[in-house]
Amino acid sequence: MIYITRKEHFNAAHKLFNPAWDEARNAEIFGKCANKNWHGHNYDLYVTVKGKINPDTGFVVNLKDLSEIIKRDVIELLDHKNLNVDVPNMPLMPSTENVAIFIWNILAPKIQSMGATLHGIKLYETANNYVEYFGEH
Amino acid sequence: MIYITRKEHFNAAHKLFNPAWDEARNAEIFGKCANKNWHGHNYDLYVTVKGKINPDTGFVVNLKDLSEIIKRDVIELLDHKNLNVDVPNMPLMPSTENVAIFIWNILAPKIQSMGATLHGIKLYETANNYVEYFGEH
Amino acid sequence: MIYITRKEHFNAAHKLFNPAWDEARNAEIFGKCANKNWHGHNYDLYVTVKGKINPDTGFVVNLKDLSEIIKRDVIELLDHKNLNVDVPNMPLMPSTENVAIFIWNILAPKIQSMGATLHGIKLYETANNYVEYFGEH
Amino acid sequence: MIYITRKEHFNAAHKLFNPAWDEARNAEIFGKCANKNWHGHNYDLYVTVKGKINPDTGFVVNLKDLSEIIKRDVIELLDHKNLNVDVPNMPLMPSTENVAIFIWNILAPKIQSMGATLHGIKLYETANNYVEYFGEH
Amino acid sequence: MIYITRKEHFNAAHKLFNPAWDEARNAEIFGKCANKNWHGHNYDLYVTVKGKINPDTGFVVNLKDLSEIIKRDVIELLDHKNLNVDVPNMPLMPSTENVAIFIWNILAPKIQSMGATLHGIKLYETANNYVEYFGEH
Amino acid sequence: MIYITRKEHFNAAHKLFNPAWDEARNAEIFGKCANKNWHGHNYDLYVTVKGKINPDTGFVVNLKDLSEIIKRDVIELLDHKNLNVDVPNMPLMPSTENVAIFIWNILAPKIQSMGATLHGIKLYETANNYVEYFGEH
Repeated sequence: MIYITRKEHFNAAHKLFNPAWDEARNAEIFGKCANKNWHGHNYDLYVTVKGKINPDTGFVVNLKDLSEIIKRDVIELLDHKNLNVDVPNMPLMPSTENVAIFIWNILAPKIQSMGATLHGIKLYETANNYVEYFGEH
Repeated sequence: MIYITRKEHFNAAHKLFNPAWDEARNAEIFGKCANKNWHGHNYDLYVTVKGKINPDTGFVVNLKDLSEIIKRDVIELLDHKNLNVDVPNMPLMPSTENVAIFIWNILAPKIQSMGATLHGIKLYETANNYVEYFGEH
Repeated sequence: MIYITRKEHFNAAHKLFNPAWDEARNAEIFGKCANKNWHGHNYDLYVTVKGKINPDTGFVVNLKDLSEIIKRDVIELLDHKNLNVDVPNMPLMPSTENVAIFIWNILAPKIQSMGATLHGIKLYETANNYVEYFGEH
Repeated sequence: MIYITRKEHFNAAHKLFNPAWDEARNAEIFGKCANKNWHGHNYDLYVTVKGKINPDTGFVVNLKDLSEIIKRDVIELLDHKNLNVDVPNMPLMPSTENVAIFIWNILAPKIQSMGATLHGIKLYETANNYVEYFGEH
Repeated sequence: MIYITRKEHFNAAHKLFNPAWDEARNAEIFGKCANKNWHGHNYDLYVTVKGKINPDTGFVVNLKDLSEIIKRDVIELLDHKNLNVDVPNMPLMPSTENVAIFIWNILAPKIQSMGATLHGIKLYETANNYVEYFGEH
Repeated sequence: MIYITRKEHFNAAHKLFNPAWDEARNAEIFGKCANKNWHGHNYDLYVTVKGKINPDTGFVVNLKDLSEIIKRDVIELLDHKNLNVDVPNMPLMPSTENVAIFIWNILAPKIQSMGATLHGIKLYETANNYVEYFGEH
């Protein structure tokens, strides 16, 4: 069992604003992240896959294929988008936590069908904050 | 003459869309950057100041003071904002080039009044792109 | 269950010198780290917290709060300090290992009281060395 | 139980080419990595060791010793080498996966004899790809 | 006048070996870089262009176009290649210095035809070494 | 004319405290940097040398030689030292500015004697602050 990670990135706008709350409550909880005209980030995405090595290739998965799947099914959907507005089925609060799980849910079955297992999603929102999700409940 | 640089950062939304053009022309020139619902970036800002060393301190400028001025006069204005909408006097096209010059114009007189000279602004929009401005015409 | 990490940093002086040993033995084991007049480092600290997502916020913990606690209870204590001299209750040998556990012991109860669980402390002493502690005995 | 990691690096040439396949099949699977005249990488190697802290030193292992072992037994063997040609006992396919396991097999017994346990090997082939191996079967 | 930089990268094999010298002299001057079976690097390439801002776009040059030219005319030629063997017109010694000038000579006329000026080439061979060339004689 | 840069690093303790001032004045100007028991940093040092390329080697200077000179004449002097106490001829205030000039004064004649010219010293005190010195008066 060995683990391989591919890094991709996307740039997106979002805001954190709970419509069930008034503006004062949103400002108190989310601070500047609640700015109604949005702000944005360069997101760095690390996708970690685990499995056995194929002796013909030396690979768990072919990184060309893994990179193509991430780009086609995740980056295309999120890059240069507004996470609150442009992305079907995104949770109401596009926090880093929720975006990481959203990406997990897209990629886990795709990687299963490559003969490997999605191990983890690591998503940097800024150089100082990141979230990791391993499919645990 | 010696040069000292302070790094700060801000996160903002923007889009590149020229209202004098139709959508097709905007898409052709700006690609995904023209997304009408915005996208965003983590901007890294490097402010370089030059001057003589004060023998009492060993400093060109006190970095505490330089950092405070950048935060108060630039970061406060741009961080967690929409560069097209929320920032008075921002040029119509908030390209990295125009944002760098916008920041130069704010900081140059402030740094003059600290007894030093603004040498350059270096602004990263992503890890792969940055602009430098040295006040040249 | 999801994991979120916040990075903070501090700059400190220290030395590694065991007073039960003579200078030759200290030099043999600790090399240049035993310099009696101290040396120092820029420490990068990663604090990883785990928990359930609060559906109202999309957060495991509010990073503003987490950052404030780390700054108030850890950074304030260690930043621009001499780890051997200025920090009450620091172990005799302020190795990266011992500093990481020292930080864990401060933060674990604070994060418990935020309704989440401290998962790990990752402490870089230099770009080439880091320690991780997960509260294991 | 605490974990300490040392980073080292080496620069090497390699290619990915399965001699059991024809050129077209190699090109299809390995793309540019199959270039018959080789290409190369700056490899970043992270070696993570776990154990108990020695109270006399504050160390799991002395990083000076760990660094020397990695340099003598791994870096000397791989640095400025052709991984396909110059390295005895390297698997036929010097993929990042296989190189990581190759390094694990060298270091695990050496670290055992230092009184600690090798926990993991993390090997970056480029800034966008890395492999982790924890000795799992 | 403003400066914009685009980062690209390529991975290549090379060796430094002067055929006018014997092996001992090559080993003395080039050390491990003279290994006859090659070694390799991840090269990071920064291309800096200067010019006036086009008020319709806010751009000196369109980074999409700049990135495409670099990829088509430089990366395609060097990526996953052996710099000594696979690259027509490469100087006999593919040192970082000579590769940087080789890239400058390709890009300078292309960027001229985009209406801007090539200002500099910065080429990292490793994280610890880089060369800069500004077209000076 | 081409420029080549070598990165080295050292870890040191220092404080900024002007003995001509009282404690209150020192605290006001230097803040936490005045802590009487020292603090410290991981310094990253970039040494940039310029010259003509030697056609026999493809080099401005041999980086092996440049690295050895920097290590022998600068790193040996500053690494794991207290800049205020352990370093002969260091200015009274070991600010990043003064340390950069101190290093320039050591290296400029050595590099002259290698047949090249010292172009610049870039010294990072932290990831957010650096000084550059080009020998200008």
